[in-house]
Amino acid sequence: MSLPHSKKIILEEKSIPEAWYNIQADLPNPLDPPLNPQTLKPIAPEDLAPIFPMELIKQEVSTERWIEIPEEVRELYKMWRPTPVYRATQLEKLLDTPAKIYYKYEGTSPAGSHKLNTSIPQAYYNKEAGIKRLSTETGAGQWGSALSLACKFFDIDCTVYMVKVSYEQKPYRKSFMQIYEAEVIPSPSNRTSAGRQILEENPGSTGSLGIAISEAVEDAVSREDTKYALGSVLNHVILHQSIIGLEAKAQLAQVDEYPDIVIGSCGGGSNFAGIAFPFMPEMFQGKKTRFVAVEPDACPTLTKGTFAYDFGDTAKLTPIMKMYTLGSDFMPPGIHAGGLRYHGESPLVSRLFYDGFIEAQSYGQKTIFESALTFARTEGIVPAPESAHAIASAIAEANKAKEAGEEKTILFCLSGHGLFDLGSYDAYFGGKLEDIAHSDEALNKSLEKLPKV
Amino acid sequence: MSLPHSKKIILEEKSIPEAWYNIQADLPNPLDPPLNPQTLKPIAPEDLAPIFPMELIKQEVSTERWIEIPEEVRELYKMWRPTPVYRATQLEKLLDTPAKIYYKYEGTSPAGSHKLNTSIPQAYYNKEAGIKRLSTETGAGQWGSALSLACKFFDIDCTVYMVKVSYEQKPYRKSFMQIYEAEVIPSPSNRTSAGRQILEENPGSTGSLGIAISEAVEDAVSREDTKYALGSVLNHVILHQSIIGLEAKAQLAQVDEYPDIVIGSCGGGSNFAGIAFPFMPEMFQGKKTRFVAVEPDACPTLTKGTFAYDFGDTAKLTPIMKMYTLGSDFMPPGIHAGGLRYHGESPLVSRLFYDGFIEAQSYGQKTIFESALTFARTEGIVPAPESAHAIASAIAEANKAKEAGEEKTILFCLSGHGLFDLGSYDAYFGGKLEDIAHSDEALNKSLEKLPKV
Repeated sequence: MSLPHSKKIILEEKSIPEAWYNIQADLPNPLDPPLNPQTLKPIAPEDLAPIFPMELIKQEVSTERWIEIPEEVRELYKMWRPTPVYRATQLEKLLDTPAKIYYKYEGTSPAGSHKLNTSIPQAYYNKEAGIKRLSTETGAGQWGSALSLACKFFDIDCTVYMVKVSYEQKPYRKSFMQIYEAEVIPSPSNRTSAGRQILEENPGSTGSLGIAISEAVEDAVSREDTKYALGSVLNHVILHQSIIGLEAKAQLAQVDEYPDIVIGSCGGGSNFAGIAFPFMPEMFQGKKTRFVAVEPDACPTLTKGTFAYDFGDTAKLTPIMKMYTLGSDFMPPGIHAGGLRYHGESPLVSRLFYDGFIEAQSYGQKTIFESALTFARTEGIVPAPESAHAIASAIAEANKAKEAGEEKTILFCLSGHGLFDLGSYDAYFGGKLEDIAHSDEALNKSLEKLPKV
Repeated sequence: MSLPHSKKIILEEKSIPEAWYNIQADLPNPLDPPLNPQTLKPIAPEDLAPIFPMELIKQEVSTERWIEIPEEVRELYKMWRPTPVYRATQLEKLLDTPAKIYYKYEGTSPAGSHKLNTSIPQAYYNKEAGIKRLSTETGAGQWGSALSLACKFFDIDCTVYMVKVSYEQKPYRKSFMQIYEAEVIPSPSNRTSAGRQILEENPGSTGSLGIAISEAVEDAVSREDTKYALGSVLNHVILHQSIIGLEAKAQLAQVDEYPDIVIGSCGGGSNFAGIAFPFMPEMFQGKKTRFVAVEPDACPTLTKGTFAYDFGDTAKLTPIMKMYTLGSDFMPPGIHAGGLRYHGESPLVSRLFYDGFIEAQSYGQKTIFESALTFARTEGIVPAPESAHAIASAIAEANKAKEAGEEKTILFCLSGHGLFDLGSYDAYFGGKLEDIAHSDEALNKSLEKLPKV
């Protein structure tokens, strides 16, 4: 007889955090200011007003440690939060490791991932500011889905510029957004001058996240009733995702645990920061906790990139930010974890990595899918390929603990389920899925074009 | 500003029921016995031993009111149970109805539907009996997915005969089962004589649930190490699904509510019975609660079928049961709610419908998808097309309550999410989805072939 399933640790609904944790209050070294992409001079908060409502701009620059979660947002969080923490006893058993493995599962949200944690407050603050319409971009579709749903909750129109190759390859993601009545436009499009310029140069362009961001920003700037929303990277997004780690910390405390290693998949950084940052104050005070950001070999921003000022998008419309980057021209190979294919990285994660508080690891996608299957076959949940990066690292750390004979406590974030990604599993089973690393030559070329700041 | 989302009613984990409710203890009229398909004589419980383990056979015929849930099964239920009940305040607001609408949401299971409630105990009892392998059939894929996962938990091999048209049209469902290492075989196949006979007569056959059942039963009977598992219809399946209604009853009691109307989608009957049966004892005692089973126009077993002894499968291998049926030759049109395309009906549901304790309604699939979208756009959850049958009825009942000016309390079961069904939503958006009713001529022909008992 198999053992019963891994133990679920439940947080009571009334214990949903009342405030988000803002790591800007505790940074050993402050962030470098964002710069105007034309003048290369530091921008003032007001300069962001054409694209974001003032409450989100305030959060972007705030150094208050705790920022209250509005009651309306907390009520919507209760639709699926608090999310469970599981102890992965079946996985531990298979690995025969002395390590204890815990995971926080964010896939129970109706959009299937952690992205709803920030799309809801973003829609809320825009609604409060009288905004009627939001524009955004999406690559794999997780963020576009989450924003479509949040806009529906607050009766805001939503336009999503979806990277064309995903639009064509993932029609079901588009259907999902249409269920919530979002307008989904394949990018590059004729709707914006940024899009038209790309299409003139290359009519067959299948798009990129950088192009789609340019189109969404241009759309927002060109209309009074519209603002822009971003699903990762920025400080206010990282802030909202702190709910993941705050809940997880309370749940581990219920079983008298504190992690030795905290692991998160890392694309723009909000998933990793969401699970990790709420555990950092104790580390800044001297507690020996390791924080591991996990990225794909194909888009190794922290492991192979440079800490420098760079553009956030192709048309150079967004502020220039100091971050780890592969260069805004870098085109990552087409892997099946589309949510991790961004050339840049959250400035907060970047700063803390640069200062030595965070480690980074990267994996090829075959290892990712092997880890995903090992997890599904022990824990029962099919993970998104993005989330499986954290699993691969957790397995590697559990194996290291076994070799060392150490009883480490590992916590990782399982940020979403893989039910939108079964086509990728199909490709894996069909032997059509290759390990693709980035090209060093392309990376060096791309890094040559960093803005001279 | 939109209202916060509908209120979630949480049941504490320690309150997961300790026993299933067996309505056979309370039936006003007992079931007619199943008959041997060759001799047409009543069968004894032992006659089922080649296909089921003894504990499940005992449950099939038991008239004990409460049957204890084994601790190992309860522990696995805790992976996702208790499931939430929501009050659909946003839907109520849109409908401007005085009715209060509650729904029990079963889509939080890792297989995405209520089917895991019975696949887990079925795998458990087979494991206990030393069985090494289970065979089953699946149409749309919900049941095959749930059994694949349950078998993985208990380290049992699993072979799924999947109706060929679904196998070809829904490759991702197949991938999902393969993630859990199930063997998935398109039916009709060359693996069984039942399959070979069909293929000889019609090499291009795209299969049916009746054929796939024949293949799965033949597979189980022909091997010592193998038993068969069924995802609906039978009494022991209905028993396991009682956990849905038992939990919902406790949740409504927490907010001092009791439903006036209980609604469930109805194919083989386990979804409807799961939510409805635990509320029936009070109705048998005189409480005025209405129970509504909802089926597709395309497969109207209760609304247009006959209460008679009939075969359960095409090759006439299963016991003959007294049930509502459209005739075992009846081939329902290919609608997008494949989980409701069975010619027969649970004998328990059939008996209670015949005796007037249950009402039945049927809807066309356009109404179903309209209702599904109305629900997703208010409540945020994308429903499976099968589950949307209950939504269509709940909306109709809420509208009736509005017309009558009555504050009815409605409870329905949202049995699964629609993330496996986005292709069907795509077809709906593309205008490719037609209302298809059954053909009366085909139905009459099919009913002529009922066994002469």
